[in-house]
Amino acid sequence: MRDKGSHIATFVRLPLYRNYLRSLSPRPEHISASSIASALAFGEVQVRKDLAYVCGGGRPRVGYVTEDLLSRLEDVLGRRGAGEAVLVGAGKIGRALLDYGGFSGYGVDIVAGFDTDTRALGLTPGGKSVMEISELEPFCKKRKIRLGVISVPASHAQEACDLLVAAGVRAIWCFAPTRLSIPDGVIIRYENLAASLAVLAARLDDLSPVR
Amino acid sequence: MRDKGSHIATFVRLPLYRNYLRSLSPRPEHISASSIASALAFGEVQVRKDLAYVCGGGRPRVGYVTEDLLSRLEDVLGRRGAGEAVLVGAGKIGRALLDYGGFSGYGVDIVAGFDTDTRALGLTPGGKSVMEISELEPFCKKRKIRLGVISVPASHAQEACDLLVAAGVRAIWCFAPTRLSIPDGVIIRYENLAASLAVLAARLDDLSPVR
Repeated sequence: MRDKGSHIATFVRLPLYRNYLRSLSPRPEHISASSIASALAFGEVQVRKDLAYVCGGGRPRVGYVTEDLLSRLEDVLGRRGAGEAVLVGAGKIGRALLDYGGFSGYGVDIVAGFDTDTRALGLTPGGKSVMEISELEPFCKKRKIRLGVISVPASHAQEACDLLVAAGVRAIWCFAPTRLSIPDGVIIRYENLAASLAVLAARLDDLSPVR
Repeated sequence: MRDKGSHIATFVRLPLYRNYLRSLSPRPEHISASSIASALAFGEVQVRKDLAYVCGGGRPRVGYVTEDLLSRLEDVLGRRGAGEAVLVGAGKIGRALLDYGGFSGYGVDIVAGFDTDTRALGLTPGGKSVMEISELEPFCKKRKIRLGVISVPASHAQEACDLLVAAGVRAIWCFAPTRLSIPDGVIIRYENLAASLAVLAARLDDLSPVR
């Protein structure tokens, strides 16, 4: 199972809608998709689609109830606790993700890392804990964590995945360049950074498909 | 302009085809899409599509000339020099990308980083140079570099982008959560890590679009 790109594009814009509505003072009772679109220089169709994702359609000729729309956006972007994730593999990419400051605007947070290498244990420069892998399961169960990030080498990714699933994780974001076996009911999103850069390089070469 | 997800999916599989063909000994003169598909446990339609991307179709009942297919794969995955990239912004994500070992299998390499902060200059743990931003343009022109990575905060991303374009870069991979103005003829791919994790979190909540 993979995410649709369109969902990501929508998520990228949600904080912009929230910030715009927050900035309105006084806040109008109703607001239309077209006025939001022109304020943010987005297409109106796109705004309607994005907002439909979080709170259905506005009413014809009236628009959205501003407070309802804003509270729905706040809700989606900052769901209590739902966005807490753990990370397995505190190498370079893992530590960069642990300390990445950009997650909070989207209501998600990687709260701790786990590693088998005792030299990786301790606090990151950003103050996140990296703990022994044996602490993964009790930590996740106590905090009811259901989101996991895998940033170990491909050869250890299945093992990391199995540990996360055993710990109760139900959605996995995998940076290891491999395919994993996951049980039904667990969702996975693969992030292949090298392939992303290679695709750009190929487009630069204007390497079009040979027909 | 954005990449199609399907191109990335194809690129993720190309090293697997290359490695499989390399492993054959003795190497048969011809090889069919169906035998590759069964060896790698891929669907045959997918294999045909992927290989069409690099070298057109095989001949009916004969398949591909093995050596031609392999050399085409090697060519796409390790194009001489085309895959050299520079990076602007040697913070946590930037340094992790500089030292990430996974790029080489895809024929790409981030060869150096640039930063305005003198404390970031020097060698990374992986041995990559981080240089002053004033050295970006001469470096890129000398090495004919056309691929750039932006890993600065959103507030500095446009400036980084303008410097890269002035230095001759024509394809940009942007990790800053913002939209950039780019001249015609420059392609850009945005990577929003926070949005990717937020989408996973939302799917976990089974937040389906409200209809």
